[in-house]
Amino acid sequence: MIDPVEALKAFLRCPSVSADSSYQEGMLGAQDFLSSLFSGIGLEVELVKTPKHPIILARKGGDPSWPHVVIYGHYDVQPADPFELWETDPFDPVVKDGRLYARGAADNKGPLMVHIAAVADLLIENPDLPLRITFLVEGEEEIGSPSFPEFVDNHKDTTLKADMVLLSDTSSPSAEQVGITTALRGLAGLEVYVEGPSGDLHSGVHGGAVYNPIQALAEICASLHGPDGKVNVPGFYDSVIEPVDWEIEELAKLPTTESSYKEFLGVPEFYELEGIKPIAATRFAPTLDFNGITGGYQGEGSKTIIPSKASTKITFRLVANQDPVVAMKQIKDAITERCPKGVRVSFKEVPGGAPYKIVPPGRPNSDPEQSPVLAKAFELADDAVTSVFGKKPLYLAEGGSIPIISQLKDVAGLDSLMIGLFTSESNLHAPNESFDLKLMERAIEASRRILWGLSQ
Amino acid sequence: MIDPVEALKAFLRCPSVSADSSYQEGMLGAQDFLSSLFSGIGLEVELVKTPKHPIILARKGGDPSWPHVVIYGHYDVQPADPFELWETDPFDPVVKDGRLYARGAADNKGPLMVHIAAVADLLIENPDLPLRITFLVEGEEEIGSPSFPEFVDNHKDTTLKADMVLLSDTSSPSAEQVGITTALRGLAGLEVYVEGPSGDLHSGVHGGAVYNPIQALAEICASLHGPDGKVNVPGFYDSVIEPVDWEIEELAKLPTTESSYKEFLGVPEFYELEGIKPIAATRFAPTLDFNGITGGYQGEGSKTIIPSKASTKITFRLVANQDPVVAMKQIKDAITERCPKGVRVSFKEVPGGAPYKIVPPGRPNSDPEQSPVLAKAFELADDAVTSVFGKKPLYLAEGGSIPIISQLKDVAGLDSLMIGLFTSESNLHAPNESFDLKLMERAIEASRRILWGLSQ
Repeated sequence: MIDPVEALKAFLRCPSVSADSSYQEGMLGAQDFLSSLFSGIGLEVELVKTPKHPIILARKGGDPSWPHVVIYGHYDVQPADPFELWETDPFDPVVKDGRLYARGAADNKGPLMVHIAAVADLLIENPDLPLRITFLVEGEEEIGSPSFPEFVDNHKDTTLKADMVLLSDTSSPSAEQVGITTALRGLAGLEVYVEGPSGDLHSGVHGGAVYNPIQALAEICASLHGPDGKVNVPGFYDSVIEPVDWEIEELAKLPTTESSYKEFLGVPEFYELEGIKPIAATRFAPTLDFNGITGGYQGEGSKTIIPSKASTKITFRLVANQDPVVAMKQIKDAITERCPKGVRVSFKEVPGGAPYKIVPPGRPNSDPEQSPVLAKAFELADDAVTSVFGKKPLYLAEGGSIPIISQLKDVAGLDSLMIGLFTSESNLHAPNESFDLKLMERAIEASRRILWGLSQ
Repeated sequence: MIDPVEALKAFLRCPSVSADSSYQEGMLGAQDFLSSLFSGIGLEVELVKTPKHPIILARKGGDPSWPHVVIYGHYDVQPADPFELWETDPFDPVVKDGRLYARGAADNKGPLMVHIAAVADLLIENPDLPLRITFLVEGEEEIGSPSFPEFVDNHKDTTLKADMVLLSDTSSPSAEQVGITTALRGLAGLEVYVEGPSGDLHSGVHGGAVYNPIQALAEICASLHGPDGKVNVPGFYDSVIEPVDWEIEELAKLPTTESSYKEFLGVPEFYELEGIKPIAATRFAPTLDFNGITGGYQGEGSKTIIPSKASTKITFRLVANQDPVVAMKQIKDAITERCPKGVRVSFKEVPGGAPYKIVPPGRPNSDPEQSPVLAKAFELADDAVTSVFGKKPLYLAEGGSIPIISQLKDVAGLDSLMIGLFTSESNLHAPNESFDLKLMERAIEASRRILWGLSQ
């Protein structure tokens, strides 16, 4: 049996920052650590090479009639800077007030360790557990999983011939209230470049004859939302599946109220989106957001120019069943059509991922052809969470995006059971990231019960 | 008698960059040079202190019944960088193919030297010339003449008790075709800040609940022009004086055609402004231009945030009789009213100057109460330019702004005769600035004739 907290600490001491090549040693350290850990609990380890960081597979095989669960995680972490805002060394884990502080503690090393510890527990007591398990741990999640699509495509008929995916890389409302994630928004991006005159022009000498590229870009951007707050792009909503009553009602069980949320955001008023309330909108509505805009003179004081160009970065979040490729074309077409003829527009596409949605078995609008193993896993998860945490889990759509989840579904046909194990206190992607150790202990027990149940 | 080219070279060797305090010695050098030059031709020199760079006055007094002409110029120059783009040292003047190359050669030391040389000529032959002349040479033109309003206010009843201003700080269509400037656009600016959430937000977690500040800013910016291309701000055009036929017809005499202008600008199409053609629009239409815009993530790749803020820099060019203070309020009011309630808007005003317009005597819509000395000066200028250059001058409204001209009019009641002495080849504010020496020679003769005529 492994000591999960000590194992996690050792894992966290490997500074596995995938975005920064100077952390190559940390990446190798994390790979070695995991390989040893997996071997130690009796799994067969394989490192699958990719152009950047290998994917680690760790298998417990068995009879082909046994259920096969793929447990997903990632061993890479976000960069730790700004370092000066950390109260302790981000790569020297420290326990304080029941939380373990380190970069990657919650995203994703802690939650991954939950499932490793659960499997280790089970296998020690039941070496011949009638369940096939494949850990699939990637090292490029924090840089957008660039090698994942090819991996899924290459392994869809072998490693990924399975019944379901189990993972913990989403959030829960609190350490006492576990959330099971039922949907993720899709994501794709578009950079829009507007070019006017061949160089910056004197606004006195030429103002009046030239379409100012910032004006053109502003007009394009402003056209992308209608008075109802919705994305004003023809066809954009055509394939959207509206949330059903129970999905909206589940949100009412969240501790967040509209007024506490508004205060958290620091905004004078919410964005008004016709037909949906703000908290629901962040989970069930597709959006189009401007992440940045730039053009002309931005320094101190003034410079009386008509700039030669301006650009903006757009990302759009999609809900089931929107297709990012279709949405990309719709948005580009709308912009191209609306671009004033005094300027030229060009694009750079940032491909993303599709939305994902799973309706738990037994719920209205659940898929009758759902995998029976997955259906059983959802029931086991509900029971395990309810008895270990003392509260039924909430079934929550999440506004964020994990493109690999829809890839696993669309290419390998695998649905995912996503048990949220970080909370807003976890400081994901921020200084002083931490993981709740009480939550960890409970989650290991819950994971153990789910996997045990699946083997029976 | 002074050698105007040699005197100009000596003047240009003083690197009088007003914007950069490390050029303080160059500023002092230019002041000393001018003081000696003015004293040498018999003028009485006074340096008027300002918070930054003194204004130089050089007077030839006389009988109070004699006409009094103020000749305006500035001894400061633009910074010379980027130095690497200069073919010769910007502060070591060189003559090549009939042009004198140096920073300030055309803006404004050459044109100023034209009038100094003309006065010097006249005074040598006619020490008792019955004309009062005051050179008013400022050292802060290139930094927006911050000390000028106070100077005008303090001197309106003394030094500026005069009949007219003569200056050459505007452009001509070519070295053979002199332009007399009949109007300047006014200018003022506004920085618009839009603030939404208290910090940048994850666009997945919060997208749909928050008014994206870039979206809000784009909507505000887009609202500021109507489908007719005009500035869409209530009241903005109320006091605009439309150009009359002869003003538009004068433009047809320019060598510029719409197609050559479009090619020069490098735009696919002109901006379409209802009721006015592009070349006329740059001179007779008020405009509102975005000089810069900024917000959110602008680096490489993508960052999926809802930024907490966005801002833009606006300048507006005004035509007679628009008031910059009124226009500023109209624009701010329109923006405030249109700002979505999900964000907050704030402003930083950049005060500017009023537009200026003078209709030459005898032209339709000229002011019957025009100063007789000014009227005579316009007639003398027309004759002098016609005979010295062999072509009648064109009477052109200019799109740019010289706030001090309207200050001299509004506070001291002085109209200006503006004889354009630089051309597009002069590379104003750019590397390899130069002044045409043949033009200089002719302009000195023309100036001499005008001043002589005024004394008779």
